[in-house]
Amino acid sequence: MRAIVLSIGDEVLAGDCVDTNASWLCSRLAACGIKVEVVHQLPDDRNAVASTLREAAARVELVVSTGGLGLTPDDLTREAMADAFDDGRIVRDSDAVDWIRERLAGRGMGMSDLQAAMARRPAQAECLRNPVGTAPILRRQVGSCTVWSLPGPPVEVHSTFDTHVAPSLPEAGSIVSREVRCCGIIEAEASPLLGELLDRDRPIQVGTRVSRGVFIVTVHESGPDADALLDEIRGRLRPWAFGTEGEQPAHDVARMLIERSQSLATAESCTGGGIGSSLVDVPGSSSWYRGGVVAYSNEMKQQWLSVAPDRFSSDGPGAVSAEVAMEMADGVRSATGSDWGLSVTGIAGPEGGTDEKPVGTVWFGVASVEARTARRFQFPGDRTAVRSRSVLIALQCLRMAMLGERSTMTWECS
Amino acid sequence: MRAIVLSIGDEVLAGDCVDTNASWLCSRLAACGIKVEVVHQLPDDRNAVASTLREAAARVELVVSTGGLGLTPDDLTREAMADAFDDGRIVRDSDAVDWIRERLAGRGMGMSDLQAAMARRPAQAECLRNPVGTAPILRRQVGSCTVWSLPGPPVEVHSTFDTHVAPSLPEAGSIVSREVRCCGIIEAEASPLLGELLDRDRPIQVGTRVSRGVFIVTVHESGPDADALLDEIRGRLRPWAFGTEGEQPAHDVARMLIERSQSLATAESCTGGGIGSSLVDVPGSSSWYRGGVVAYSNEMKQQWLSVAPDRFSSDGPGAVSAEVAMEMADGVRSATGSDWGLSVTGIAGPEGGTDEKPVGTVWFGVASVEARTARRFQFPGDRTAVRSRSVLIALQCLRMAMLGERSTMTWECS
Repeated sequence: MRAIVLSIGDEVLAGDCVDTNASWLCSRLAACGIKVEVVHQLPDDRNAVASTLREAAARVELVVSTGGLGLTPDDLTREAMADAFDDGRIVRDSDAVDWIRERLAGRGMGMSDLQAAMARRPAQAECLRNPVGTAPILRRQVGSCTVWSLPGPPVEVHSTFDTHVAPSLPEAGSIVSREVRCCGIIEAEASPLLGELLDRDRPIQVGTRVSRGVFIVTVHESGPDADALLDEIRGRLRPWAFGTEGEQPAHDVARMLIERSQSLATAESCTGGGIGSSLVDVPGSSSWYRGGVVAYSNEMKQQWLSVAPDRFSSDGPGAVSAEVAMEMADGVRSATGSDWGLSVTGIAGPEGGTDEKPVGTVWFGVASVEARTARRFQFPGDRTAVRSRSVLIALQCLRMAMLGERSTMTWECS
Repeated sequence: MRAIVLSIGDEVLAGDCVDTNASWLCSRLAACGIKVEVVHQLPDDRNAVASTLREAAARVELVVSTGGLGLTPDDLTREAMADAFDDGRIVRDSDAVDWIRERLAGRGMGMSDLQAAMARRPAQAECLRNPVGTAPILRRQVGSCTVWSLPGPPVEVHSTFDTHVAPSLPEAGSIVSREVRCCGIIEAEASPLLGELLDRDRPIQVGTRVSRGVFIVTVHESGPDADALLDEIRGRLRPWAFGTEGEQPAHDVARMLIERSQSLATAESCTGGGIGSSLVDVPGSSSWYRGGVVAYSNEMKQQWLSVAPDRFSSDGPGAVSAEVAMEMADGVRSATGSDWGLSVTGIAGPEGGTDEKPVGTVWFGVASVEARTARRFQFPGDRTAVRSRSVLIALQCLRMAMLGERSTMTWECS
């Protein structure tokens, strides 16, 4: 089965927001064994949506659109769907009106005319219930193609897809995407290590990409041969490979800490809590993450983490230094009684850089009974880039220290 | 001038990643007064890319594609562009070979055959230099349409667009998107407040959308009428409206703190550092953000924030309570000597919920000489949703306390 996905909304084409619905739908459809041929992002333009819907329904067996079902006047997907398949005829679905009224009553609210208007549908389409929102979703069979229209908010896309669309799809083997995810290595460094594995004419194809600072190697296949190939890829990229699809470095850190019954605390400066936030992303983190300090000022570094005051004096190494990174990691470890202390101190910019320590200079410290290391990096990019790279690399520094591994990472200063 | 944008890459259609390039390009093109008619996301499929390029070039004056110019065998955009416009003829550009060699030499590296192959181009296209990467970009004039092919990594898209594409565009008035951004109110609550302003037949059109928990009202126009309209919208949504395009609640908090020469510290539990991270997103935050504590365990809440130990006893209110939220805010304020203390304590799930305090229960505390408040919310959604909403609402609670404002927010428990 082949599918086409439509993301409808002026905001997408104006560049006001990033469309995450299409990628979520592609991923779910792939898991059902359905290949998405193309995604079209369209404005709230009745004619453009109608003609794209018509062409898509003639080409594939499944069309899923999101957006344009709300109650404001720029929501035109109902009208466009009626133009495409029902000569513009729209009717009011009385069951759907009742359902909207009940739903609002359950929230202690009355139904306005605007809200009742969400029960309109193309003449030959069906209204189906929305488990989380108040806009019914639409389904229309067009020859051999089923056309679905879902609302725009991601939480409603997820819930209406799982409730209505997914159960209607034929049982099929899924297209599994399996990944080896790495950090601290860039494509140009990794490609020679992967070598012949990337050749396009091999039985199992290997893809690579970079996403938010993570270098990802993908294998679109399952079975023993794919398993062996994934092992081979992991082996070649071992020091940098922290996990598999959907994972961040925090997941591997969590695995190792749980295995060793150890705990972790963090002391952050320029990342402002980003490392803690990424650790807490892992469910169950309270069993191994003690918490930490966002020591954004020098005073806090002294008061909370026992960093020596003379570090900040004019002839001292300064806040962004190996000494302060080490003392922050030691300080948070002893203050919390945790097995591992992880610290970061750096210059995210746009201000604060000097010739000796330009914007992008970041020191990481790792402290435990087993290891004490400080590593310096020089990251490219703006404040946001420096901070997000710092979160990833901090956790990579910790991972490598826990593994007794010391491979150089991209942007590390020797 | 009208444009079509293509995002090329198997990873996009497989749902392995969210495409941010298209939205960035749409936003830049809008700022140059160019309307993007449609975005197509396509796989690394030579035929599909070639036919889409050909149709797009016949329809609009500007086509910009991203992706598929790298050195791995799944990079096929050069070939597809040659198929579309040059009968498949590809040549090696000797100037580009020299440039790649020089560029790598500057990094102390030799040029591999893979890297040299990035200097190939469709016969009638030009190679242009890439300011940050090693893959040259491509330009091909096709009748009245200019077709650009840029690499996929976002940092290279930004830099090649700004260096080559933007300067080639005609001078034109920009399509300005101006926004009123709100948090703590949903579309169904805001629409009646906006009322007739949303009518589709008014001279200036007003759009609405929701993005990552932020309700956004957009006006695609500039001038005094648009200014007056924006003021009117802001007035109607005043308690919830924290800022304008590109802003988060942290920006308004920053503005107010700077204006009052006050400082802030944070005490976070379930958000794990997310509030601190969002504060530090604002450049210059070190002048008003003192830092904070990620008190993820009860021990840390007592030790670092002086929360009374009997709060956690079997007949106490528990870690997720008004008392603990207040004491955390008080505690971090007095420990850091800051003017304002902001705290959050809640149950993000999936574990830890009870009948009385289900998953999604979150308390926020705000403490200062001027105000002391604790507010309880019951958020829908999973761990990630609860945590990201908590970060936004925490800052809204602080904003409202600073403004002496006390409107109810969505999901707040009365």
